[in-house]
Order: sequence, then structure tokens, then C-alpha cells
Amino acid sequence: MEFLKITSFQNNSVKHAVKLRERRDREKEQLTLLEGYRELTRGQEYGMEIVECFFAPEQFLGENEYPLLENLANNGVKVMQVTPQILTKLAYRDRPEGLIAIAKMKRHTLNEMPIVPNGLYLVAEAIEKPGNLGSMLRSADAAGVDGLIICDKCTDIYNPNVIRASTGALFSVPLAEATSEEAMAWLRANNIKTLAATPHTDKKYTDVDLTQAVAIVVGREQTGLTDFWMNDSDLKVVIPMLGKIDSLNVATATTILLYEAARQRNFPMHDYDGGKK
Amino acid sequence: MEFLKITSFQNNSVKHAVKLRERRDREKEQLTLLEGYRELTRGQEYGMEIVECFFAPEQFLGENEYPLLENLANNGVKVMQVTPQILTKLAYRDRPEGLIAIAKMKRHTLNEMPIVPNGLYLVAEAIEKPGNLGSMLRSADAAGVDGLIICDKCTDIYNPNVIRASTGALFSVPLAEATSEEAMAWLRANNIKTLAATPHTDKKYTDVDLTQAVAIVVGREQTGLTDFWMNDSDLKVVIPMLGKIDSLNVATATTILLYEAARQRNFPMHDYDGGKK
Repeated sequence: MEFLKITSFQNNSVKHAVKLRERRDREKEQLTLLEGYRELTRGQEYGMEIVECFFAPEQFLGENEYPLLENLANNGVKVMQVTPQILTKLAYRDRPEGLIAIAKMKRHTLNEMPIVPNGLYLVAEAIEKPGNLGSMLRSADAAGVDGLIICDKCTDIYNPNVIRASTGALFSVPLAEATSEEAMAWLRANNIKTLAATPHTDKKYTDVDLTQAVAIVVGREQTGLTDFWMNDSDLKVVIPMLGKIDSLNVATATTILLYEAARQRNFPMHDYDGGKK
Repeated sequence: MEFLKITSFQNNSVKHAVKLRERRDREKEQLTLLEGYRELTRGQEYGMEIVECFFAPEQFLGENEYPLLENLANNGVKVMQVTPQILTKLAYRDRPEGLIAIAKMKRHTLNEMPIVPNGLYLVAEAIEKPGNLGSMLRSADAAGVDGLIICDKCTDIYNPNVIRASTGALFSVPLAEATSEEAMAWLRANNIKTLAATPHTDKKYTDVDLTQAVAIVVGREQTGLTDFWMNDSDLKVVIPMLGKIDSLNVATATTILLYEAARQRNFPMHDYDGGKK
């Protein structure tokens, strides 16, 4: 298959993609960038609609890129070969892997969030660092979370560093964006208990029943949960810290809580469709 | 208290500190840089010997810096006020907090590693990313690990990004650096079982006894444990992954395993002295 070749930074498609490196432009156009073979294939697998794709074969790491590109082209995606210099300019990574696509953002609302009997949910309030949100998505996927509600978001969930850190879990975990008030109302309406971690209790996270319908609620990196969630959560637990340091990273705390829930549930394998229709 | 004031980048102390931003120079001189209030106080608390300290009060975040500096000066540390421009040049952080010290590296050998009855150890083989090693140190501290053995190190443990990501746990967790062969010999001699995580088993990490003397062994980010550890480990377990993504970050996997050990041990509070004499 022959692909269109672009060698100029002044090409309109290239200039458009460069603009999408800015959050403001991504949000205005509801488009985002997917970088790398893994992210493209996972994005495609879980229902992200890819509209354009740039590639620079000099940067390819393997031999699977051309079949992927041909598959994209056969599905109506505009596929363009560019110079390594152009690809590098579009890339977020220090060592680009020769693939960058433009994809449509999906809307994530509570109306579409699956309501699973005895479901396990995660609520992330005002997380600031893309790397932390990405790690939390990855742990949520691994622990079999039924849905992640992002409240009062401070980082753009389609920030390419979130996509990257999530290793594609951004696409596989059912997501909703909401205000804290909307999220609490949805959880209450569906009889899902809320659980907050705090140092101000003696009840360990291993001492509560995490097999019931429960949402683990975690808060902003520096300041933790707001009073809104801390005061009104149904369950308050402590993660014991046995050493000298007095705090855990929010993604680490999330992992500990989610895997304890998974353990109590005897690690059920899930069959959710990752938002695919 | 009056401190020496330095305004020139050509000052010998400044030039020396700039050199220590290079790993080669740090290793040659066996000196490292500590940046920020938390790292300095924790470093000092856990026995790091600070030899020089630079500060720029314009960048201070709080009011505790001057008492710390006076304490350092009273203990024979050469304390120097510099311009914000000089401090920023020495700093690793985007937003420097006005404090950078030069400290002596400690030697970490297996001979000094505490041998604790039914101890919990962590072996980290060839970890590449400073952020991951720092996260693992932080989790090791929180889970009450009795010692961390770093094998075939690929990242400088005194890399300022390790210190930062560990939030000071680098100083509080008993550490040894060794070859894999030396580490395995030490563990065997002390009847400490080794545990490796692998997808190629049905035995879950929650199904093994982690209350015995055990070392959790984790490997390099991209490639996992080498055959040396994978083949010869006493226990092989799987961390179930219930979603769509097929791998966990090494620091995340470490956290899950360490906190399961802590849970099985009923979260004992530790009293190790963090290497202080």
C-alpha cells in the first residue's frame, strides 16, 4: 500500500496536529493525540475513533506497524508518512516510536456508567498529575474496577501523558466525568457505599467488607480528599504505614485499596466491554 | 546568625556543586546533592553526613528553613547564601525550594544489613528508572520492610530523582548494594525464602505464607526478572490482573506484594533505626 508522503512542517495536517499538543485546542476540537503502537491498538480496540495517523518508519520498533497502518487506511483513516523530524515534533516521548494518531475524544457521563451488582468503583477527586491519573487507571484496570468517576478534574484525561501512563487503560476502564455532588448522588442512588482513607481512624482497610458495592474515593496529591467526601463517606479506613515516612503517593494508596478489594472478592475475572458498543 | 554570601557562578563551592549534578562526579567523590527541606531533614535524621549547604531565602516555602540552617552551621556544616539564579542552577526541581546540600554517600553492604527473625526483605534487580526506585523505597518504608537489596543497579541510588521520589525513604530503609549472586548467597545463608512474581503460575500471591522470612524479588521494568532469580526463587506467585491490560508497573507490583505481606503480618510497627548509629 502506498501512503501520502509529507515532508513540510507547513503542511496543514501537520500544523493541525501540532496545535493539538495544546489542551485548549484539544478540548475545543474534542480531539486528542494517541502516540505509539500500544496506545493506537488499544485505543482502536476499545472504541476510540481514529481520524488521522502520521508515521515515520525510521522510528519503528517492530514489524507490526505496517499491518496496523494498512488496517487504519482500509477503515477510512487518513494515513500519512512524515519525516522523522516532523514525527518528533508531534511526539511527547523522548524516543518517539514513529506513530501518532488523531482520535476523537469520547464523552464520559454517569448516564453511561455500568451499574454492576456488588460493583467496585473508584472515585478520583481533583487529581493533578497526569502520571498519577494514568497509574490509577492502570491499577483500576488490573484490579477489575467496574468504573472510574473523575470528579472536579484538574488534569485533562486525554492528556497524552495520562494515555501513556495508563498504558491504554484509559480506553478499557469505564469512565465518567462529573462534579463531586453529581458523583455522590449517583453513588447514593445506586446504593454504592463510599470509602475514604484517612489517618484519623483505627479501622484498617483490611477490616471492612469490600465485597459489597463500594466506591473507593481518593483525593488530590498534596491535600487529600476535600471535606465533602471525607465527611460524608460511609466507610473510613486507615492504610497502616509502618516506617518513617508519613504519607503514600495517591496512586500507590489507590493500588493498595483496590487490590485488597480484589483479594476479598477472590479476584473475579471481568468481562466488561471497555466501552465498546 | 550571619551566613557567607555568594553571588558568583565562578565561586569554587558553587562550581563544585554544579559538578555533582553529574553521576560520574558524584561517584568519584562519593558525594550527593540533597534538595529541599524534607529531604535535608530526613537525610540528617537518618544519618546522612551533610558537609555543605546552599540556600536562597527568596525561594523558601515556609519558616523552618533558618532554624535548620542554624542547626547545620552549629554542627560544622559550611552554610552559604546564594542568589536564586545560582540555587536554580544547582536544583533538579522546576520550582526549587531554596535549599541544596552536599552530603556524603553512605556505603551499603550486605554485612550491615539487619538480619531480622521472620524479616521481610525486598530485592530490586536492575531497576532503571529513578522514579520507580524511589517509589519502591517509599512503599518499602510504608510496608515495614526490614531491608532492601539493590542488585546489579542500573540507576545511581543517590540520583537526586531517587531521593526525591522516595520522599526520604532512601535514608530510612536499610539498604545494601550487591550482585545478584551475592544477594542470593546472603538470603540462602540466612534462610530467607525468595519470592518471584510471574504470570506463569496459578498460585496467587495471597495464597502463600508471607509471614515467614521472605524476600520479594522484582526485576527490570521492560524485561522483568532475569532467569537467575526467576528459576531459583523458592516461591513463584501471580498477581491476578482482571482487566484488559497485561502488565503492572514494577513499583505497583512491589506495593501489592509488600502490602499483602504486611497484611498477613497484621501490620507490625517497626523500630528499626534507619541506619543511624
